[in-house]
Parts: sequence; structure tokens; C-alpha cells
Amino acid sequence: MKKIYMDYAGTNPTHPAVLDSMMPYFKEYFANPLSIYGPALKAREAIENARESTASLINAKPAEMIFTSSGAESNNFALKGIAYANQKKGSHIITSRIEHHSILNTVRYLEKSGFRVTYLQVDNNGVIDPADVEKAITDETILISLIHASPEIGTIEPIAEIAKIANEKDIIFHTDAVASAGNIPIDVKELGVDLLTLSAHQFYGPKGAAAIYLKEGTRIIPLIYGGIQEGGRRAGTENVPAIVGMGKAAELAESEMNNRIKHLAPLRDEIISNSLNKVSKVMLTGHSKERLPGHASFVVEYIEGEAMLLLLEGNGIYCASGSACTSRSLKSSPVLASIGVPDHIAQGSVVFTIGQETTEEDIDYFNETFPKVIGKLREMSPFTNGWEGLEDPECTAKK
Amino acid sequence: MKKIYMDYAGTNPTHPAVLDSMMPYFKEYFANPLSIYGPALKAREAIENARESTASLINAKPAEMIFTSSGAESNNFALKGIAYANQKKGSHIITSRIEHHSILNTVRYLEKSGFRVTYLQVDNNGVIDPADVEKAITDETILISLIHASPEIGTIEPIAEIAKIANEKDIIFHTDAVASAGNIPIDVKELGVDLLTLSAHQFYGPKGAAAIYLKEGTRIIPLIYGGIQEGGRRAGTENVPAIVGMGKAAELAESEMNNRIKHLAPLRDEIISNSLNKVSKVMLTGHSKERLPGHASFVVEYIEGEAMLLLLEGNGIYCASGSACTSRSLKSSPVLASIGVPDHIAQGSVVFTIGQETTEEDIDYFNETFPKVIGKLREMSPFTNGWEGLEDPECTAKK
Repeated sequence: MKKIYMDYAGTNPTHPAVLDSMMPYFKEYFANPLSIYGPALKAREAIENARESTASLINAKPAEMIFTSSGAESNNFALKGIAYANQKKGSHIITSRIEHHSILNTVRYLEKSGFRVTYLQVDNNGVIDPADVEKAITDETILISLIHASPEIGTIEPIAEIAKIANEKDIIFHTDAVASAGNIPIDVKELGVDLLTLSAHQFYGPKGAAAIYLKEGTRIIPLIYGGIQEGGRRAGTENVPAIVGMGKAAELAESEMNNRIKHLAPLRDEIISNSLNKVSKVMLTGHSKERLPGHASFVVEYIEGEAMLLLLEGNGIYCASGSACTSRSLKSSPVLASIGVPDHIAQGSVVFTIGQETTEEDIDYFNETFPKVIGKLREMSPFTNGWEGLEDPECTAKK
Repeated sequence: MKKIYMDYAGTNPTHPAVLDSMMPYFKEYFANPLSIYGPALKAREAIENARESTASLINAKPAEMIFTSSGAESNNFALKGIAYANQKKGSHIITSRIEHHSILNTVRYLEKSGFRVTYLQVDNNGVIDPADVEKAITDETILISLIHASPEIGTIEPIAEIAKIANEKDIIFHTDAVASAGNIPIDVKELGVDLLTLSAHQFYGPKGAAAIYLKEGTRIIPLIYGGIQEGGRRAGTENVPAIVGMGKAAELAESEMNNRIKHLAPLRDEIISNSLNKVSKVMLTGHSKERLPGHASFVVEYIEGEAMLLLLEGNGIYCASGSACTSRSLKSSPVLASIGVPDHIAQGSVVFTIGQETTEEDIDYFNETFPKVIGKLREMSPFTNGWEGLEDPECTAKK
């Protein structure tokens, strides 16, 4: 049976050229980059080259890039680091309801430590209204953190417009660009952000390497204290192979970006139009135009996400869902609630994300299979017209 | 020319079997372990297997192990996480003068946040006196964090004895075992510690994978908030290949431990006795018996560490120094000051650490070369009897 990976938003495979670039740093140049003999200097040099490529991907200066171990670490570092560095100036933070857990759970922690947080609503397409940001700002506001693009519903936010408001009021602006960086063009100068999170495994780089862009002159309190790595702002022996891999992935993403988008966007549009035409009671989630090039997400009414995922996998399709039963936390995605999807319909969430390995043939197969799977589930299900009689659908997924 | 890597305390090469174990998780099983389809479940399973091996290495339960990205992260997590979780009980922390930067700089940060810290002195061998720990304890003491073995001077501390005191007074005890875990037998139950830091690249595992042992039932505040990875205690997409590599490295370390020590200890003893016999004005730093099996460290009077490292490298020997000029932070090691080495003599620090690739022939070559290098430096140097006339030796190392 055909196997089609359609969970690129979960993670990307590591590009073969990226993996190749990493291997010498597991082998001959394994030395600690803090040491001062030859092979260690080669490792140090490799890190600085990776810093240049990663900076170039988003039009930053190399000195403005700090390597971390994950997008979650970058987001924690950004929020706590800026909040603590500026707590004498004020204690108000603005974010949104559609942020990643590593933002939402960090601001919740900051709330417990005495910061006040405003959670902005979004419209039904998942778009944050810049006017809402402006209204939320007070004299106490020290930080605004908003997602660049949602990995759950694909919507790309009007970050440049919002950052402009923040800049005018001299408020530090962070954007979580984990889902977008390396996948759509990003220029931190044009966006006007002070901090930006990016993660290698979202653009064919390895897991274990991520970064935070920190605009020159922005003060931050470290999250990880220790040695003088990363200019004293993030301690710990550098994960040299992963950083080198991130650099290579950034280089490829920059040179291949246009081709990649040209490959993805038409396939994504086929998925969306075919699904909307051929699947009964289906709705696109997120914005229809301002969305990530490889991202198609839906809710299918009266179908349980878990059942969908299992039957799709049975047909060789690997994908994701924001339903409670398919998440290991057993909670529905708060993002779907934010865009007005009622909880019982959010149970029918399904997210298809594609990448460079996805072919036209894969999409043909998918376009045949998805409507069939839903048809089959409707036949099997007594709930063709609603969840009546089913108060609390039990989760049976392999957890 | 022969090339001999003698900086295993800086980092270890990744064991070929470890690298092999990682490769499938860059390739076929690259999926996000949070997902619920087949290949993702394989990745999840691999993490749990690695957790078992890593736990087994130190006789912990798998559920007591939390994977992180580095020893520095584990140390920051341990100290801040325990301090914040217990700040209602008290605000006093005990540590020592010979800790790693990731401990010292973290407790300095905690001092700024209102905690009070006692820094214990050590004797001339670098040993912490359990009686000093007992004396330092107050009703306010919530945490004691002491290093298990020093990567700079090799001394192994009487942790079991000290932990017993902490346990009797119901004070949480953490040990930074980055330099020792995987290299000497560690049993957390016998040691009696509540938390223990270990890092894969110190026992032939990859960089980017480390862990903290957290005794069942010990409350901790996360350092990195976000998803539900690591039981909600450390968020971020798991670095699956590195974690798998850590598991494999732990498995090898456990089964090979005795052989490894049998290989290293006699070679270390040869280095020490030969150097003390054949090099003029040289002194061993650290304990002569209670020391890491592959660790030999010295200060050579009136010789500058930087010059030593450069000339040793010129003779194919890669090693380390705690002198100011050879550290990228341009500060002398505080560890040498703690054991009573005056600053001008600490400039002559040199650290040789060996591993499984080190051969008897390597040590023969080293034993010939080291005295020659020092002889040559003494010929070249006007400071054969002291630093007179040289107030502030300038640093010229390739930085």
C-alpha cells in the first residue's frame, strides 16, 4: 500500500543533504567548540557559518541569532527573558488565543509570577485584528507576542502591521514563526519584529536545533545560565551537528523557497477544493488565501478525529487532528474554539500538511481516499446528523 | 605526526554504535513522537527504551528521568525548578566554590531573585567536607547542590555522606554528575540524591541529549513550558535521534564500565607519575586517589597555559587548561583558586583527559613529549624562576 506522510506541520524529514552536512561533526570534528586546538576551531567555525546561513534566511545579522534546542525553548526564553528584563517598566503582556502551548503555558506561568496578560480573540478565519492589539495596549505593556502562522489552521497573521503599532509605542514585539520560517519568505526588518522564533525541523533541518532572532540592542535575561556559549545568552555545550544541519537547512530553504512554494501551493489548493467538493459536511478551518503553502485543515461534522486518523492510516495516509482524543493531552485544540468551532464539531478536526516529497500522484490518491474514508465512517456511524445520544465519546486511540 | 585527543572532559567522540543507533530516527522514523500513527509510535517507543537504559545506568526508575538538551539545561532546571517550587519553605541554598558555571551562574541569578546562597570552601585536594555542609544548614535551607566530580581537577566528592546529612534534615539534594555519570558507577539510591544531572556527550553519546534524574515524588517547576512531552515537565519536540543515542551510550557505559575503568586508570596513573617525575616544577591538582579514572591535571610553575597548549598541539596533543588566556571568557578557573593555587601559578594549568580510544602507545608518546615541551618552554621563557617583570601576561591565543 502507498504510504503518504501528510503531517509536515508535526515535523519534517531531515533533508539528505542536511544529514550529510552533519556527519563530519559527529566524527572528525566532534571536539568541544570552546577548546582552542585545530579540530575544535573547525567546530566553532562551522557554528558561525550556520549562524550566517540562519541569519540570512530571515535577513538578520549573524550576531542577532541565538541557537537553542527547540522552538519551545526559544519561546520560553523570549517571553521570560523579555518580561524579566523589563519588569521595572511594566507588567502587562499581550498575546492571542491561538498561540502554541509553549507561548500559552509560559504566559500562564508569568501570570502566576505577577504579570498581567491580555489574550486577544481572532476572527473566524483565525486572523488577529491589529485594531484589537492597539486597543489592548496600556502604559504598562512591555511585550506583545503573536504567532506568525498557525500550524493548526494554517492562517498567516498580519504581523508587519501589528509590529508597526508595537514599534510606534516602543513595545517589544515577539513572533513565534516556527510554522512559517523557512517555508515562506520572512524578512525581520520588513516585519519589524524584535524577536522571532524559528525551528530547524520545520524546514527539513534536524530536531534539536532552533534559534531566536534577537534584534541588536535588545536586552534579555538568559533562560540557561552557565558558560559563555552564544555570547553568554544561552549556555551549554553546543549541539554542533544539529546547528550545522540547521545552517544547511536554512541555506536550502533560502535558495529553494520559491520552487518549494510553487510545488506546494497548487497541491494544497487541490486538496482543499477536492475535499470541499467531495466530502459531505466538511468545512475548511483557517484563512482560505492567507495560509501556509502546504497546509490544508478541516473539520468534518459528526465524525470523530480519532476514527478518521485510524482509517486514514489504514489507507496509508499519516496526518493529524486537533481533536481531544487524538492529542496526548486529551484536550481539544483551543485554536478551534477560538475560531468559533463548537467543541463537538472540533472533534472532527483533521489537518493535512504536505512537503517537498509529496507528489501529484500522492494527492490524486489522497483525493480519492479521503472522501471514501469519510463515506465509510458515515456508514459505520449512527451519528450522521449529530452527536445525539453520545454525551462523551470515549477515547480509544493508542496512547 | 601522531594526533592524540586528550580532552575527553571537554567532550567525547560519539561511539560508532551510538551513531548507528541514531540514523533510523533521522530517516524512516523521523515522525513527531506526539503523533499517533505507526512510525510516530516507533519514535515514541524508542524514546521510552532510551529512558529505560538511561535510568538503568544510575539505578533509577524510567519515570524518574527527564530528558533535556544539555547538562547546563539540566542544572538550570534543577536549581531554579527546586528553588521556585520550595520558596515558601525557605530561601537558603548551599553549593560550593568548585561547581560548574551552569551551577554558579544560576545560583548567582537566584541570589538576585532573593535567595541566599552559601558557597562552601574545599580543601587543597578539592574535597568538600561533609562537616562544613552540616554547619551551613539553617532552618531556611531548601536545596543543596554539589558537584559529583570536577572536570577540572578530577576529584570525586563524598556525595553519599553529604546526601545523608541532607536527607536527615529533609533538604533536597542535587548533584551535578556530568563529568562522572557513565564513567564511574553511580547508583542514585545508594548515593541518596534527589536530583542528578547527566550528559550523553560525556560518555560517548551525542551532544544535544542530557537528562535530569528527579526522585519520584519531588515537585519541580518546569524551565521550558509548552506541550506534554516528558510528562509536562520539559516541553519541546523531542530530539529523537539524540535521545536514542543517549540510550545506546548509557547501555554501552553500563555494560562496559568495568572494562573501561580498567583500561583508563593505569594509563592515568602513568601520566601522573611520569609527569611528576620528569617535568620540573609541576604539581598535581585534585585528589591523588579519589579522582576520575581518565583524568590527570597539573599546574606547571612559571609556564603559561596558552603557550603549553599551543606547543602541545604543535606536537599533536590536544588538551585543555584552566588558565585565563586559554578560556574564551578570559578568566582563570575559580576551581584552582578554591584549592589554593595562586592566580599566577593557575596560569600554568593543564588538563589531560583520556578515553577508550587512548592507547598505551599514545601514553608512551605523551610521556616523552610533555617533559620535552615543558623543557623547550623553559628555554624560551625568561620566567624560569617566577613571573617577575611580567605584570599582566598578554593573551594571544587564537580566539
